[in-house]
Amino acid sequence: MGQAATMPRKTSQRYETIITHIRAAIQDGTYRPGDELPSEAELCQQFDSSRGPVRQAMSLLRTEGLISTGRGRRSTVLTTAATGTFDSILSISEWLVSLGKEPGQRTEWIARRPADEITAQHLKVTEGEKVVSMLRLRLADDEPIAVERIAFPAEIGQHILDFDTDSGSIHRVLLDKGVDFESITRTVSAMLATDEDARLLGIAPGSPLLRLGLVASDKQGHILEFADYRYNAEDLAMHLNSVRGTPTPAWLAPHEGVSDDLPAS
Amino acid sequence: MGQAATMPRKTSQRYETIITHIRAAIQDGTYRPGDELPSEAELCQQFDSSRGPVRQAMSLLRTEGLISTGRGRRSTVLTTAATGTFDSILSISEWLVSLGKEPGQRTEWIARRPADEITAQHLKVTEGEKVVSMLRLRLADDEPIAVERIAFPAEIGQHILDFDTDSGSIHRVLLDKGVDFESITRTVSAMLATDEDARLLGIAPGSPLLRLGLVASDKQGHILEFADYRYNAEDLAMHLNSVRGTPTPAWLAPHEGVSDDLPAS
Repeated sequence: MGQAATMPRKTSQRYETIITHIRAAIQDGTYRPGDELPSEAELCQQFDSSRGPVRQAMSLLRTEGLISTGRGRRSTVLTTAATGTFDSILSISEWLVSLGKEPGQRTEWIARRPADEITAQHLKVTEGEKVVSMLRLRLADDEPIAVERIAFPAEIGQHILDFDTDSGSIHRVLLDKGVDFESITRTVSAMLATDEDARLLGIAPGSPLLRLGLVASDKQGHILEFADYRYNAEDLAMHLNSVRGTPTPAWLAPHEGVSDDLPAS
Repeated sequence: MGQAATMPRKTSQRYETIITHIRAAIQDGTYRPGDELPSEAELCQQFDSSRGPVRQAMSLLRTEGLISTGRGRRSTVLTTAATGTFDSILSISEWLVSLGKEPGQRTEWIARRPADEITAQHLKVTEGEKVVSMLRLRLADDEPIAVERIAFPAEIGQHILDFDTDSGSIHRVLLDKGVDFESITRTVSAMLATDEDARLLGIAPGSPLLRLGLVASDKQGHILEFADYRYNAEDLAMHLNSVRGTPTPAWLAPHEGVSDDLPAS
């Protein structure tokens, strides 16, 4: 059920092994909020590691908001909160599986067609260039959870044109084809349900929606995907942890340019 | 105007110095998206550092979503996006200053009163225990930007009862009093403007709002503050960066328990 079974993994570095063990021990309750972790020296011994990887692991756990660290004292566990893995951010299917729910989908349409202005700007292609776009209702245990609007440049989208998009995760297909998803920027905003959103989600038009815009890139910064997910705000919320001394990879910013425009559907 | 001038800072460690320099070079355009950073060996030389701090700095910049790293290749800049500093997350005043805007506020009321059920649960105090709570309209360049509802346990709130809450940042006052803010958990959701929200923000009731719930704790995990910020969704959005291999300190989760209830106002 975990992501290890379904998504490719890279070889772990030493600090990643340490992080994985400590994160698991926090999540299974071995360490609880307020508990102190073993000292740096003890962790070095436990993981047969030099200080570098242990310190790197502590820095990253601090960045995640899981622990508080400080010179001359032991690290303290702050929260048991789970963090978002890359795959569960990229793929609603992966996210639902991580919640113990059965992912499902009902494709409204999928099309290969010329990019409209907004889609072209987000995908950084020329307006009128062919892209593959899709509208799906996503289900969690057979209940509507999100309206998914997604667009891919043609060379990425071609991989899913002959895939049955009702049958499972398109990101699973794309990863299998070697598409190299490396970074994701999300924009979280609020909006009122349109008639189409409301019909698909089974709620009243004008209900509040939590909206996640998503742009995914490869290592060279090429745009691989532009997506718009709309969730009934009654169903869920986004949670973020921040710890003093560590920048949080999230920021609240006034709207500007086209980044928050609706994709055409 | 930066945060260094107005908020206390801890002594920097070596990797923090490296991060600060590289982040500044990305933000001022010295390095642009797609550019490669100097090699690890070059960075060691440039910062007169061993490999440990350089690697730690690269890990954290990767966690922020600013760069992509990989074995056997140079790190690549992914985005110029700013990240949220702890002070700009804690304090709307600091956040507005970082945007080049003039922060302002208009206090509707401030009260020392018994905690209602919801406030008690969030602050982890007993229902009926005295807390200090407040409703303020926050302004950016004299325009409404957010409705702020905030509650403090009595021992924290006492510091602001004799402060003119129209005159500036209450977090500035609390930090000066030695209140040790260490970690923040935020909940981002969507809602419709209530009549009170609409009146304060100067928008129509039922307009979509982006809502940020905030719980701040000290190093020991004691709750210092519970706040509810509501922004006109037309004005702004939250942005998040995620990079493969690095957990993001944010996760989307179904509502459960009381965590998303409205605080009494």
